[in-house]
Amino acid sequence: MARIVLKFGGTSVGDIERIKNAARKIKAEVARGNEVAVVVSAMSGATNQLVKWVSEVSDLPDPREYDVVVATGEQVTVGLLALVLQQEGVKARSWVSWQIPIRTDGAHAKARIIDIDTTEMARTMTAGEVPIVPGFQGLSPEGRITTLGRGGSDTSAVALAAALKAERCDIYTDVDGVYTTDPRIVEKAQKIDRVTYEEMLEMASQGSKVLQTRSVELAMNHHVRVQVLSSFDAALGSDLPGTLVVDEDEIMAQGLEKSVVSGIAFSKDEAKVTVTHVPDRPGVAAAIFGPLAAANINVDMIVQNVSLDGSSTDITFTVPRADLVRAVQELEQAKADLKFAEVQSDINVAKVSVIGVGMRSHAGVALKMFETLAAKGINIQVISTSEIKISVLVAAEYTELAVRALHTAYDLDAA
Amino acid sequence: MARIVLKFGGTSVGDIERIKNAARKIKAEVARGNEVAVVVSAMSGATNQLVKWVSEVSDLPDPREYDVVVATGEQVTVGLLALVLQQEGVKARSWVSWQIPIRTDGAHAKARIIDIDTTEMARTMTAGEVPIVPGFQGLSPEGRITTLGRGGSDTSAVALAAALKAERCDIYTDVDGVYTTDPRIVEKAQKIDRVTYEEMLEMASQGSKVLQTRSVELAMNHHVRVQVLSSFDAALGSDLPGTLVVDEDEIMAQGLEKSVVSGIAFSKDEAKVTVTHVPDRPGVAAAIFGPLAAANINVDMIVQNVSLDGSSTDITFTVPRADLVRAVQELEQAKADLKFAEVQSDINVAKVSVIGVGMRSHAGVALKMFETLAAKGINIQVISTSEIKISVLVAAEYTELAVRALHTAYDLDAA
Repeated sequence: MARIVLKFGGTSVGDIERIKNAARKIKAEVARGNEVAVVVSAMSGATNQLVKWVSEVSDLPDPREYDVVVATGEQVTVGLLALVLQQEGVKARSWVSWQIPIRTDGAHAKARIIDIDTTEMARTMTAGEVPIVPGFQGLSPEGRITTLGRGGSDTSAVALAAALKAERCDIYTDVDGVYTTDPRIVEKAQKIDRVTYEEMLEMASQGSKVLQTRSVELAMNHHVRVQVLSSFDAALGSDLPGTLVVDEDEIMAQGLEKSVVSGIAFSKDEAKVTVTHVPDRPGVAAAIFGPLAAANINVDMIVQNVSLDGSSTDITFTVPRADLVRAVQELEQAKADLKFAEVQSDINVAKVSVIGVGMRSHAGVALKMFETLAAKGINIQVISTSEIKISVLVAAEYTELAVRALHTAYDLDAA
Repeated sequence: MARIVLKFGGTSVGDIERIKNAARKIKAEVARGNEVAVVVSAMSGATNQLVKWVSEVSDLPDPREYDVVVATGEQVTVGLLALVLQQEGVKARSWVSWQIPIRTDGAHAKARIIDIDTTEMARTMTAGEVPIVPGFQGLSPEGRITTLGRGGSDTSAVALAAALKAERCDIYTDVDGVYTTDPRIVEKAQKIDRVTYEEMLEMASQGSKVLQTRSVELAMNHHVRVQVLSSFDAALGSDLPGTLVVDEDEIMAQGLEKSVVSGIAFSKDEAKVTVTHVPDRPGVAAAIFGPLAAANINVDMIVQNVSLDGSSTDITFTVPRADLVRAVQELEQAKADLKFAEVQSDINVAKVSVIGVGMRSHAGVALKMFETLAAKGINIQVISTSEIKISVLVAAEYTELAVRALHTAYDLDAA
């Protein structure tokens, strides 16, 4: 017998039929003799409708009232799912966040969970009842309803799993796991059986919407084993049909063959900015990025080369495409102070990354990437690296070609 | 300065435009220097959708989970209305029932309010904030969400007005007050300025859907002055544009001319049942109505004449049309015990009532009714009377004729 938290996202409870489908998954897990707690999102579309109403009535809504309105979406789902389970003969009851309570800070619309009191809930689970808990929300220190921000339901599920000391947190979604790359681009992409928190974080931060970054961080910090799996998959046979996100130690301890590179990620949401002939003196980088940070523009890859003439240099970096216009404006305004020559920008770029914890102990991973791209005639504009990731910026039109070539080069293609 | 509770029903907050309209009414009331608290229903249609979902997932839903689902409708409205008011520069905040709390008993889906703790709310009102409270719901002794049953929002508003010791409870709806009869039948029907709780109860129990019976009873018991008025009426000029429902004493104290008869009510939702040749012995009435009560069939008018032959009598009564078939079945099953001759039934009947507290002190009110109907050639099938109401059963086809004739006879026609 194990204690498991199951989480169903918006599309997995998108209508009555899908809620019934989720109930079958829960029933099967209970039938295996497990103690099960369930976290659910709002029915897909419900939250959008609520947010739309709020935006129709208020230019700058009071986030406390925003939360009162949007938190209703999950409350509907917990009640309906409890009813379906009861109808199926499974003992179940809904909890709302103030009943548990799920305590958060007071940062409405983007609250953080402080703690979850699972004393009473754990007692009912031991007595054979399945608690159905709303994701995405909590109770502020002032006793008001809070929400965690978009995608917060994954975070709720992981936090509940940590509080319940659950053996696993199963995140049911509309894909059947984490893939070596986007299967829409690379036909031979494979589902990954096990991936580390660190790799998942790198993937999550780069377009892979399978898991929310915040929830992966929380899982990593509390050593919550997370499984990503499909709620539309009929197969109930396999014990672990999805992708398990775990500590590197667990993968090693099981003596599993871990490939050096786990996946190829890419993002087309990039724009490149180059500031030319920046005076090469201490503090100039801070002077450039200060105004961007103040404008809440997130800078990603940054390259500054050594100054050849000893007096000026070029600085290149990327920003999200949506922020490009603002970024250029901020820099132009600072031109008098910074004394650079000009700002060049390009939105026709894409970031392609090779991700894998194995590269920490393997030489030549970067070299293979550069050689592979060169062999296809793809020019690398910018390079940045972390311990477990190498990213390059290339012209956007080469994205698919680069991803496919790298997927093959690192032996990720399915047989 | 007065303290006033305003209540807006589902059609009055049916969409964003109507919520904005309700906010204008509230703002005007605040601008008059009044302390205002607001009770709202769910947006019209919202509760139906929630109930539909529940019925789709469960044959016999757990009422605790039913309440979790359907209570979300009002939570959406309180948040949106608070946002609109803030946008309009009115200090406002939403409360949900567990925050106040509105304590009810544990009879889920048909709970009764036990008490409302208005300590904190009254403090915020004195500080100039408008509390927005969801109607229809509360908190059970077990700490779970309850609902009061359909139409419960009027009851919530009256209960809040009683708890806040408010000067008045204004119920905004889609009609501009209580009329002497249905204006769709009688063109000359007039809006009544003041009506007593007792008269309102008689009207409410007979088709007039303006106020819920429960809320009128509660208002009567706690002496809460209730005004029924239209939320679609542009006029903000008059202080009391609607119909005021109050104690008889208040009407008398103001020396107002009170007509003997306040209104003519009618109901086509009647079916007549006659049980013939019932043995005339003690306990026979109980023997007939026992099975009907057990089957939860509500019996209205009952007539039993004196036995002429000394051994048997006929008993006639009315039931709601929807229950007629079941009523006849119940009686047929009891035929062997009761030893009556046969059960006759007729659905082509209507009940027409003359209502007015003034008839307690005026003779001849009933006579005028009978004479008026006789003059139009309308046969009276059954008569029943209470202290402030005389009801007759007539053939359904005469309903409109009877109502118009009585409206004129009692001097209710508008000039």
